[in-house]
Parts: sequence; C-alpha cells; structure tokens
Amino acid sequence: MRIAVDAMGGDFSPQEAVRGAVLAVKEKRVHIILVGREQEIKKELSGAAFPEGLISVVDAREKIEMSDHPATAVRKKKNSSIVVANRLVKDGKADAVVSAGNTGAAMAASLLNLGRIPGIARPAIAVPMPTLNGTKVLLDAGANADCDPKDLLQFALMGTVYAEAVLGLVKPRVGLLSIGEEETKGNRLVLESHQLLKKSNLNFIGNIEGKDIPVGLYDVVVCDGFVGNTVLKLVEGVAGALFKQIKDVLLSSPRTKIGAALIKPGLQSLRSKLDYTEYGGAPLLGVRGITIISHGRSQAKAFKNAVTYGMKAVEEDLIGKIRRAVEHKPEKKKDKS
Amino acid sequence: MRIAVDAMGGDFSPQEAVRGAVLAVKEKRVHIILVGREQEIKKELSGAAFPEGLISVVDAREKIEMSDHPATAVRKKKNSSIVVANRLVKDGKADAVVSAGNTGAAMAASLLNLGRIPGIARPAIAVPMPTLNGTKVLLDAGANADCDPKDLLQFALMGTVYAEAVLGLVKPRVGLLSIGEEETKGNRLVLESHQLLKKSNLNFIGNIEGKDIPVGLYDVVVCDGFVGNTVLKLVEGVAGALFKQIKDVLLSSPRTKIGAALIKPGLQSLRSKLDYTEYGGAPLLGVRGITIISHGRSQAKAFKNAVTYGMKAVEEDLIGKIRRAVEHKPEKKKDKS
Repeated sequence: MRIAVDAMGGDFSPQEAVRGAVLAVKEKRVHIILVGREQEIKKELSGAAFPEGLISVVDAREKIEMSDHPATAVRKKKNSSIVVANRLVKDGKADAVVSAGNTGAAMAASLLNLGRIPGIARPAIAVPMPTLNGTKVLLDAGANADCDPKDLLQFALMGTVYAEAVLGLVKPRVGLLSIGEEETKGNRLVLESHQLLKKSNLNFIGNIEGKDIPVGLYDVVVCDGFVGNTVLKLVEGVAGALFKQIKDVLLSSPRTKIGAALIKPGLQSLRSKLDYTEYGGAPLLGVRGITIISHGRSQAKAFKNAVTYGMKAVEEDLIGKIRRAVEHKPEKKKDKS
Repeated sequence: MRIAVDAMGGDFSPQEAVRGAVLAVKEKRVHIILVGREQEIKKELSGAAFPEGLISVVDAREKIEMSDHPATAVRKKKNSSIVVANRLVKDGKADAVVSAGNTGAAMAASLLNLGRIPGIARPAIAVPMPTLNGTKVLLDAGANADCDPKDLLQFALMGTVYAEAVLGLVKPRVGLLSIGEEETKGNRLVLESHQLLKKSNLNFIGNIEGKDIPVGLYDVVVCDGFVGNTVLKLVEGVAGALFKQIKDVLLSSPRTKIGAALIKPGLQSLRSKLDYTEYGGAPLLGVRGITIISHGRSQAKAFKNAVTYGMKAVEEDLIGKIRRAVEHKPEKKKDKS
C-alpha cells in the first residue's frame, strides 16, 4: 500500500505532514510518498527514526497557496505538490492521496487527474461528524455550493457505500437535512430530494433538523455543499466559543480554579473528541481514486489518521463499490431492468 | 401600551403564558390581553397577584396545533387564539402580538391580518443570536425557505433598522453568511446578494462563515430561511450536546463531582446565557404590525421578555422606521432621485 501525502499542504507544512508520515509507517503497514520540496522535506526527515525504505520523497517545487484560485492554480501549477501527488495515483504509482492544503485545489486536482466515476455528476466531500452517538458522516461538506435533487440522491448513495465499506456499518441510516421533520418542510431542493430518497432503495429515515445533527441518530446526513460547509464550520465555531466561555468560568475565582483542576483531564478528552483535526480527513467521494482532504490545521496525528482512512478505503475497494452501486441504479425501489 | 399574548401557544400553555403576563404587568408599564380559552386562562389567573385591571382576557376557543398546516389552519380556524390576537392588532385594540405557538401559523396569521409593509417582498424572522461579543441578530431564521438576492438585501435592511431601533446599535455591521470570506465564495444566491449588499448604503462588512457566527464580530447576519433555521437549531443542538457531555464528565468520578460542585454556579449562568428561551422572542420583520414569535418551549420569563421586546419595538416605531427605510431605496449607494 502506497499513500501519497501532499507535504506542502496545511498550516504547518511540511513539518507536520512529515511527522505524520513517520508516525504512519511506524504504526501501519504502509509506504508513504511525501510530495513537495525535496530539500525541505529531507531536512524534516533527517532527524526522524523510522523503518528504512518506507518513506520516499517525490520532488514538486510549486505550492498552491490558500489564496490561489483552485481550478486556475491546478491548471497553471503543474508541478505543485497536490497535482504531482494526484498524478502518482493516476499513474498507478500510489494508491491514494492525502492533502491538508487548499480544499478547492485538492478537489480540482483530483477531478482533473483522476476524473469522475461514471454516472456521478458531482463528487462530494464526506466529513466525519462527532455526535453523542458516535462518529457519523455528513456530505456534501463543501464541494458543491449549488446542487440539484439528483446530486443529493447520489450523495446519499455514496455516503451509504462509504459508511458500509470504511466505517463498517450495516444498512446505514440516511437522513436528509431539513427545517422540519415532515416531508412537506424544506426548500425546493430538499422537498424534491426527499421524494427521490423515499423512492430509492437506501435506508432513508426521513428529514433531520439542525438540532438532531449532534445527537447522531442517523449514520449519513445529506445536504448541499453550502449548507454542509456552514454546518461543519458552525459546529467547530460553537464548540470553540463554548470551551472559551467554560475556560473563563473555570478561571473566574480561586474556588472555580480548584474545581477546574479536578475536572481538567475529562474536559480535555471531551475537547479532543470534538476536534476535527483528530479525525484526520474527509474523503472526496465520486472521483476515480481515493482522495482524503484533511483540515488545514492538521498536525502529525491528523495526517496519520488521514493515511489510515485512505488505506482502509483502498483495502475495502471503495471506488469499485461506489462504481457498482451507481451502475445498480439506486433511484428506484423496484428496478425491473 | 397593550400587548396581545397568544395564551394557547407553546408547549406549556396556557400556564406559562399566563405566568409571563403576570410577571410583565408587575414589572413593566403594560396592559396584557391574554387570548385563548377564557375558562382555562381565568383558572390560571385565579391564584395570581398582580395590579388590578392590567390583564384582560379575550376568548378564542380554537387552537392551532403544532401539526396543523399553517396557512390552512389560519384560514379555517378563524377563532383560534393566534388569529384573534392578530385581529386585535389589526383593529387597533392591541399594539403588538406575542406567540409561542406554531411558527408558521403565527407568520401566516400576521401576514393575512396585518399584511406586508409596502415594498417588502418577504417578511423574515430575526432571531437574537448569543455570541462571545454579545447578542446579535440573524435573519431570516425560517420564514422563507427559498429566497432571491433582493430578499437578502431587504433582510439586511430590516435587520439594520431593527438593530438600530430596538437594540440601540449605531450603524450596525451587516455580514452575509457564506462558505468563505472572499466575495467569490458562496452559492449563486450568496454571490449575487454580495454584489447587491456591496452597492447598498448599509454598513456591509462582507461574508462571514459558520465559524464566525458564535464569535459575533458583526451585528446582523443575513441568509435564506433554510440556512438560518438550520443554523439556529444547530447552535441549540451543539450547545445541548456539549453540556450533556460536560455533565457526564462532571459526574464520572468522586473527584470530578467535587470539581463540579465548585464550578456549578458559573456553568449554570453560562448555560442560561445560551438558552434561547431566555431571549423571549424573535420579531417577524416586514409585516404591518409588531409580531414577536417565541420559542415553543417558552416559560414565564421568556413570555415576559417577548412582551418587553414587543413594547420596545412599538415605542421605537419599528414599523414606521422600516417603512421609511424601504421608501428610501437602499439598493444604491448614491441615490440621485
């Protein structure tokens, strides 16, 4: 198993990407190909101890910045780390790619180099969503700002296959994000999507609302990429704001400071459970290759987790399973063809 | 000042509506008209002590249930509490109406009985949003699942007038909810709305993202009602889920239980700061009358707060100010007419 890691992507690159690669090869049966500026990467690698031969470096001198326009940058910067990493997958030299860089560029590079799975109109980002009932999947988390009902049906299908193959769930429950439980509630997109989902052979459990997302009585929740991205960032923002306020409460008096010392370990573990950087990454579902998009703030452990996700997706033949699910035409409950 | 309160609306009606009315007349210079089933209301009132003559009851035998279809129910149940309460405002017998019932029905009753302010295409619900930097306003919180860019511009205008008149802010900062700070990020609706807002004479500060909502470096945030309702419910859900998990941490061992006792008052005060029922209500902006929509779970204090909101909106002539702002044509920065 060979995973290409975009070593230049993310806020702490290449240092954290390299440290993540080292962690990965120490813990997993994997070969990591670090893609980026060779000198910088080798400098980071020089002090590290890891099993010989399990990390290689592919030089890529250009770097796509967070401020670059994704599609344009991917076309112009053919020697950027993310483009080169995707080409390795295309050329069969790597089995999956991991990047914590510009999300739009990571998507564009995969679309351009790997292409879409036949029948898939729009690939979608599937993010892990921490809930009271374990980690669930939300898609699309931002690949497509405008969607039509058939897209949401395909997201539901791809999310189902992903939840089965990579998360090991049986008949994953699919919820449609809306503003009321009843099928008459929602915007035009959601009202029509509801009808398509109801007729599909997926395990559709109906609409779920914003308040239900953190409870997690579903396995896959689908929405357009604008709503999904807003949800993702809002959850992060609300959790951050609350922990900040709790910290203020804990430090407000000598009495609360003693209390704080007693509960600190528990709170820290809760905090890390909610930290997206812990989850490692979100697959871009619908392209013909495994692409894991990681949070820009990813540190070593997040890179290692993203590599693990990528490996699992390869082992489980996620692409083949999505391809077969699409061919199987999920739109109708009874397919007589 | 006379405020009509839909005594049958909300999860704990009529008890909490009546208790809220009693609180209000004790603390504020206001006359409350409780609208609903007279016998039930009078029974609740019988034990209460309050200044004589400041609470009256108007009988309305029908009740719109949460499961009723809003527009149909409002047309058919002409003697429902929410319809009768709105008629009191229409007939000049009350200055504002407060309801914690079926939100759709409250909106429909106001639209049907009070009508829209001339020039306003779609009234919007403006909810108070607790943030690290004080309470801000988000609209639309659910009145319009599908919007066009001109609607969002009007929401921004109405939100600005509301923030100035009722919240006392000077030149309120208006943010547009999107999935990136740059004006090139967003869905079609948001991209076009951004251009309209940029050309307007409002204090438009650009796009804000989900993660920025709880930080509150804006005064008014605009979005369509589908996104706004999702945001509102998600904030509620995430806060609830986090407090539940924190409670689990606090009760996990004898050591943490001691810690919990020391920090409990601070946490409770934080919790109540985030509790929407504390805020009392959200005005439906754009109708020709003051309509305050309260949370279904409203208890006495929330009803009292909603009454206070309504009073303030009346005192500040919110309707007149919105009307004049619409006539003033906010679309252009330089209005040469």
